[in-house]
Amino acid sequence: VANRPRITLLTDFGTGDGYVAAMKGVIAALAPDVLIDDATHDIAPGDVHAGAWALAGYWRLYPSGTVHVAVVDPGVGSGRRALAARADHRFFVAPDNGVLTRVLRETNEPSIVAVENERFFRSVVSATFHGRDIFAPVAAYLASGSSHLDLGRAISDPVTLELPEPQRSSDVVRGVIVHIDRFGNLITSIPGSWVGAGAGVWIGDRELTVRRTYADAAAGEALALIGSRGVLEVSVRDGNAAAILAVQCGAEVTVRLARS
Amino acid sequence: VANRPRITLLTDFGTGDGYVAAMKGVIAALAPDVLIDDATHDIAPGDVHAGAWALAGYWRLYPSGTVHVAVVDPGVGSGRRALAARADHRFFVAPDNGVLTRVLRETNEPSIVAVENERFFRSVVSATFHGRDIFAPVAAYLASGSSHLDLGRAISDPVTLELPEPQRSSDVVRGVIVHIDRFGNLITSIPGSWVGAGAGVWIGDRELTVRRTYADAAAGEALALIGSRGVLEVSVRDGNAAAILAVQCGAEVTVRLARS
Amino acid sequence: VANRPRITLLTDFGTGDGYVAAMKGVIAALAPDVLIDDATHDIAPGDVHAGAWALAGYWRLYPSGTVHVAVVDPGVGSGRRALAARADHRFFVAPDNGVLTRVLRETNEPSIVAVENERFFRSVVSATFHGRDIFAPVAAYLASGSSHLDLGRAISDPVTLELPEPQRSSDVVRGVIVHIDRFGNLITSIPGSWVGAGAGVWIGDRELTVRRTYADAAAGEALALIGSRGVLEVSVRDGNAAAILAVQCGAEVTVRLARS
Repeated sequence: VANRPRITLLTDFGTGDGYVAAMKGVIAALAPDVLIDDATHDIAPGDVHAGAWALAGYWRLYPSGTVHVAVVDPGVGSGRRALAARADHRFFVAPDNGVLTRVLRETNEPSIVAVENERFFRSVVSATFHGRDIFAPVAAYLASGSSHLDLGRAISDPVTLELPEPQRSSDVVRGVIVHIDRFGNLITSIPGSWVGAGAGVWIGDRELTVRRTYADAAAGEALALIGSRGVLEVSVRDGNAAAILAVQCGAEVTVRLARS
Repeated sequence: VANRPRITLLTDFGTGDGYVAAMKGVIAALAPDVLIDDATHDIAPGDVHAGAWALAGYWRLYPSGTVHVAVVDPGVGSGRRALAARADHRFFVAPDNGVLTRVLRETNEPSIVAVENERFFRSVVSATFHGRDIFAPVAAYLASGSSHLDLGRAISDPVTLELPEPQRSSDVVRGVIVHIDRFGNLITSIPGSWVGAGAGVWIGDRELTVRRTYADAAAGEALALIGSRGVLEVSVRDGNAAAILAVQCGAEVTVRLARS
Repeated sequence: VANRPRITLLTDFGTGDGYVAAMKGVIAALAPDVLIDDATHDIAPGDVHAGAWALAGYWRLYPSGTVHVAVVDPGVGSGRRALAARADHRFFVAPDNGVLTRVLRETNEPSIVAVENERFFRSVVSATFHGRDIFAPVAAYLASGSSHLDLGRAISDPVTLELPEPQRSSDVVRGVIVHIDRFGNLITSIPGSWVGAGAGVWIGDRELTVRRTYADAAAGEALALIGSRGVLEVSVRDGNAAAILAVQCGAEVTVRLARS
């Protein structure tokens, strides 16, 4: 199937300064027929973990051939490499700082290159805005059918974030909060498949019941459920769990499994 | 005219968590040629009234065939139905919680179905993210030319919000503030056509003159005018009326009509 | 090259009230094949300077034929004119309040008209929302190939903002902060080409070293560099310079040049 090529953009730029529009303009000039989807520009400044988490929620839902750009780049202008990758029929363009960590863990034999071929860059590259000068033109070339292998040499040592690994024993699972979403839902590192029927979830000194959905709890009640990303989440029905439970990223969550 | 099909998206998701991008990815995979317009993702979490108000401001301006998706869905995962509707040549996809109230009041003989045919859903439907798993794929099918009647059985009892009805007598009109916009403009329930020349507008113990436009008031002056939605609004020239007048949604507004 | 026409939208509307979607709907109805790029809707309400600054960062990066709409319009409904311009092969649509100042300074012989031909407007024009009723339909007509000269009479006296002009002598350059971006970077009026090797930058009583990029400074260190717009910027590595240095727009910056 010859899908119309699409480029998605994830940044921590906000939109108010025109930086995102500059990237779109570069893409539009090089690949005028490509559709550009704003994924998000509201990643907190420099929060590579949050960028990695958001990207993991949508990249595979897009069709084959999509080019996903992720620019959360506090190290711009340093020696950090720029990466392009092909994995599971999608393309990725990002700084080499771990923002692709979750993608690379979820894909089979990703092919990664260090982007070095200046022929694909804007003619003058600034020290502070590689989104416009490197990542956008590279994405446009990929969306136009260029191979990522033309961009630079293959590498096998991308920078990766240390993601907290959940621990399990026969009767207990331990994990942490890895993301807090706009609604205040607390998303954990614990796979939903590890949480059997009858389990109790502890966050701090608070015990929560595992429910199927928000509506199974009373209004204002804190609950645990398997969320849309397939991991355990802690929520408050019709409320903001992060605010009400006063919990931050990194907080520990314990699941006591029912005896079978 | 064979318009290029478009899908508009209104949510309360924000963009930072990747939830909106997940919806776009599902649509792009099923209907790669469809254009996706972000209407807004900044509805306050769970504010169905605000979603209904925003949607009413643009749905009819889009061309025939447009699919408008509105996901403000605090009851996701409960028994609340999912709706698809065809009305005045546009399509609508939304939870059955009143977010379509204003659309349905403004259209002639809308045809509404409860979306139940799982053939149109993602293969696994989560308990908490029907935007991705039901509303996005359904919108893609509608934009691709499927009939809304294939999605489920016709219904005639959609949930509707109770909208405050303005009251009029021979010399006075009473209404309330139904929406406050980004600029602090206070939008009322009072039709502009009910406000004749020479009327005085009262909000709290403050009397305002009805002007044609902001520029007819002095800088910093509070005024009333007929706004872009055709209803009476209260504004402060070059200022934020909501902040300066300390008014919230639901506040009463009284219009004293001039004797004719 | 017959580029697919694109319209970019810059506003101070936010998206939550549906005003932006109303503009998109009007465009989609008149020019269904045109791609619409959100540049930004997060300009601070009424901040014409910020709108002008953001627009200047992307307009030229878009391909020939692009129609750039910029609606920051605190004077809507007053006698202020609506403008359409053709400059360096792009089109511009905006209120006549200076938001095009930077574009017009950067282009050769721009051709500007006062938009007066109501044939191109929506049939009823509100007093408060020319984005929907005038600027959007005019942009759609331009993107569809209409000439801007059909829209109204040529003018040569557009309103322009007074931009602060940097001053230079043999050993010192003086300028001001003209924009603060999302990251807290302080962007000055001083051309990068005026800042030679070995220069020292003063902001308040603080002296900063000119670096090539953020990574050349220690974490938390304030520095000066030539930014992506080609002018001198003041930053804090891994920090928010505006907050840490407590500096606002308009603050003075002095560069002491090295003796050559």
